[in-house]
Amino acid sequence: MTLLPDTLLSGYRSFVQGRYLQETQTYRALARDGQTPETMVIACCDSRAAPETIFGAGAGELFVARNVANLVPPYNPDGEFHGTSAALEFAVQALKVRNIVVMGHGRCGGIKAALSPGSEPLSPGDFIGKWMSILQPVAETVAANALMTSGERQTALERISIRTSIANLRTFPYIAARERAGELRLCGAWFDISTAELWAMDPETGDFQRPLVDVEDAVI
Amino acid sequence: MTLLPDTLLSGYRSFVQGRYLQETQTYRALARDGQTPETMVIACCDSRAAPETIFGAGAGELFVARNVANLVPPYNPDGEFHGTSAALEFAVQALKVRNIVVMGHGRCGGIKAALSPGSEPLSPGDFIGKWMSILQPVAETVAANALMTSGERQTALERISIRTSIANLRTFPYIAARERAGELRLCGAWFDISTAELWAMDPETGDFQRPLVDVEDAVI
Amino acid sequence: MTLLPDTLLSGYRSFVQGRYLQETQTYRALARDGQTPETMVIACCDSRAAPETIFGAGAGELFVARNVANLVPPYNPDGEFHGTSAALEFAVQALKVRNIVVMGHGRCGGIKAALSPGSEPLSPGDFIGKWMSILQPVAETVAANALMTSGERQTALERISIRTSIANLRTFPYIAARERAGELRLCGAWFDISTAELWAMDPETGDFQRPLVDVEDAVI
Amino acid sequence: MTLLPDTLLSGYRSFVQGRYLQETQTYRALARDGQTPETMVIACCDSRAAPETIFGAGAGELFVARNVANLVPPYNPDGEFHGTSAALEFAVQALKVRNIVVMGHGRCGGIKAALSPGSEPLSPGDFIGKWMSILQPVAETVAANALMTSGERQTALERISIRTSIANLRTFPYIAARERAGELRLCGAWFDISTAELWAMDPETGDFQRPLVDVEDAVI
Repeated sequence: MTLLPDTLLSGYRSFVQGRYLQETQTYRALARDGQTPETMVIACCDSRAAPETIFGAGAGELFVARNVANLVPPYNPDGEFHGTSAALEFAVQALKVRNIVVMGHGRCGGIKAALSPGSEPLSPGDFIGKWMSILQPVAETVAANALMTSGERQTALERISIRTSIANLRTFPYIAARERAGELRLCGAWFDISTAELWAMDPETGDFQRPLVDVEDAVI
Repeated sequence: MTLLPDTLLSGYRSFVQGRYLQETQTYRALARDGQTPETMVIACCDSRAAPETIFGAGAGELFVARNVANLVPPYNPDGEFHGTSAALEFAVQALKVRNIVVMGHGRCGGIKAALSPGSEPLSPGDFIGKWMSILQPVAETVAANALMTSGERQTALERISIRTSIANLRTFPYIAARERAGELRLCGAWFDISTAELWAMDPETGDFQRPLVDVEDAVI
Repeated sequence: MTLLPDTLLSGYRSFVQGRYLQETQTYRALARDGQTPETMVIACCDSRAAPETIFGAGAGELFVARNVANLVPPYNPDGEFHGTSAALEFAVQALKVRNIVVMGHGRCGGIKAALSPGSEPLSPGDFIGKWMSILQPVAETVAANALMTSGERQTALERISIRTSIANLRTFPYIAARERAGELRLCGAWFDISTAELWAMDPETGDFQRPLVDVEDAVI
Repeated sequence: MTLLPDTLLSGYRSFVQGRYLQETQTYRALARDGQTPETMVIACCDSRAAPETIFGAGAGELFVARNVANLVPPYNPDGEFHGTSAALEFAVQALKVRNIVVMGHGRCGGIKAALSPGSEPLSPGDFIGKWMSILQPVAETVAANALMTSGERQTALERISIRTSIANLRTFPYIAARERAGELRLCGAWFDISTAELWAMDPETGDFQRPLVDVEDAVI
């Protein structure tokens, strides 16, 4: 038996024979000089929405934290373990990224769980339930909206959660300070898995719009 | 001004005109049927070590959590926010992945921070310091080893941390149970950014070895 | 019965009909004019790590001392027999070599013995135990490191021992003096028997790195 | 500047592209299974008399100790460092070699030093002088023989020293025991650098004779 799943080994072989072979100098320089990504992406764990794939990103371009439903918890320096906050601190304070992009996506399982508050926990510890409660009470409000279909509620909360995470980003004092100083930009994006449409959030209004009309020409 | 960083928009255009165009049916099926990834990867946020790139993974293949230094905290159902534990719960209990791969890499900034315990916090909240304390006291022991060079200490802790995370995975009752039942496999891997070498952990000894000699044929 | 083992006689026949036939003039000149090697190698007795083979060295190129685990004892002019110190004295003072390379290798039996301090001596005189005690107390420290696997401890001590030997070289007054004068260079190297990788020690940091990426191109 | 002398790196490149490439499976098997050499050679450090070259030996064939003038000191378990005795112990007790070959050679600088007892030490510690005193008082007797030319004295002591080393080998209890049991064979050989003649010692008489007449046909 191999030490890693066969599909990973086979994919690794392709990487080495293809991309790494073409970009060897880039990888070596990145190893030697360290990373200097301009952008941090906070994305979902979902296997269908890898930010490097969607943004066609090469080595060294994106610093990426991925958790269920691409959430940012509010600033809470209580001495507990906070993986996402640690990643933010490293990206902003050590790497001095110039952009943070919160990227959500359609058909998100975490958002779906947040919209089903009374459902059975996945395990007694209910880590998902607790994690998605970052979105309370907005999730409850959306869930209670009988005027929208379940599909509309799902999309609505996917976008509300992006706005919530961006609001939570601003509770980190150094993020707020750097944004005010014009050194850091906070963006929202939403990816439709089926059509590959990418919607970007307007920072003034919070509305999501498709930023690249000609790409759509290509797509569809 | 565009709503997203220009390099992301440009990369997205390439994705849509290239990969998505070729794999449109795959994306549509994944959207319609939901994701069924066989493997979860716990990886670092580092911009030089994206698991989809290294494992040449297509849409739907890898469920990915990324945090600083690819750490798994020990099981602690205390009702606080635990992003990585939530991702694990979702992957194992809802998606029923068959493999979990903890993937570390060389020159990891988080590991470097863990080896400099007396250094200045990156911010008053010291989220990185607290997060990396998941590796205490082993990080202290490694840091105190004056016989090894700083480079050797770094590599040693990168590998010890993978073994520690795998041990922590086994503190989750349902992970341990599924592993015992032969339904779930826990793997460790370590990626060298400069040479693209991928080292896999031997589950018996904990040693890291390069799993694919014929891949090396290709590489170099 | 022949006077020498058959495989040695057969190998000698190949040497005479092959290499010697081609290099007869070189051998005659070396006999007539004496040897003037630029480099001394201190290597292990291991049958898998002959320095002439690994460095593709021709007649007259390498002055070679080989002992178990390629150790250099500290300078100790006590009037006892010191084979390695005698070889050093001859190489540096009589032959005036310009480089000394301490070459270790993976899976070294001597290093393995040094990491098993309580094991049964190989004979009542325990020459191996005493010889490997040149590495005390560092071997004890490495042996006690429970965070590393036995394979990792082995590699760590193989490299620490090279650094120790190089430090011991500098306890010989004439070696230290010639190094200061820029007339003698001290190098460390480590050979992986399985992959044929050659790692060279950085003299500033003590780290080992592969010196020849383009050689790797060839290798594998 | 490279980390190792250029000629070694260049020779290593040849090794990797040539011999290692052809014998990769052998090297991997030797790494995996460990070494099992049938023969130990005790040879001189001289750059012109590498045993692997002269015996055309492949990886894994010869366990080799090399010191100045290929000497074996008498058995002396005094708790001091004895590199050659440690190598013997490892070869005989751990590896269970079946042959030990003491190989001398012409124009040996150590033998020449032993024949010039009043000459200036190479350094204040006089490690060479002390080391060569293993051959006292026979070296003094040969040096005092005014009937022989200096060339004849040199060759005579080169051969006497081989017989002395073989006698010293028999002072090691386990070597004597294994030889009596027919499990270990002690051989002497002498190599002429200029003509590549290999002379082997007759174990009964101690005389040296050329073992391979047809090789000489090839040579000369």
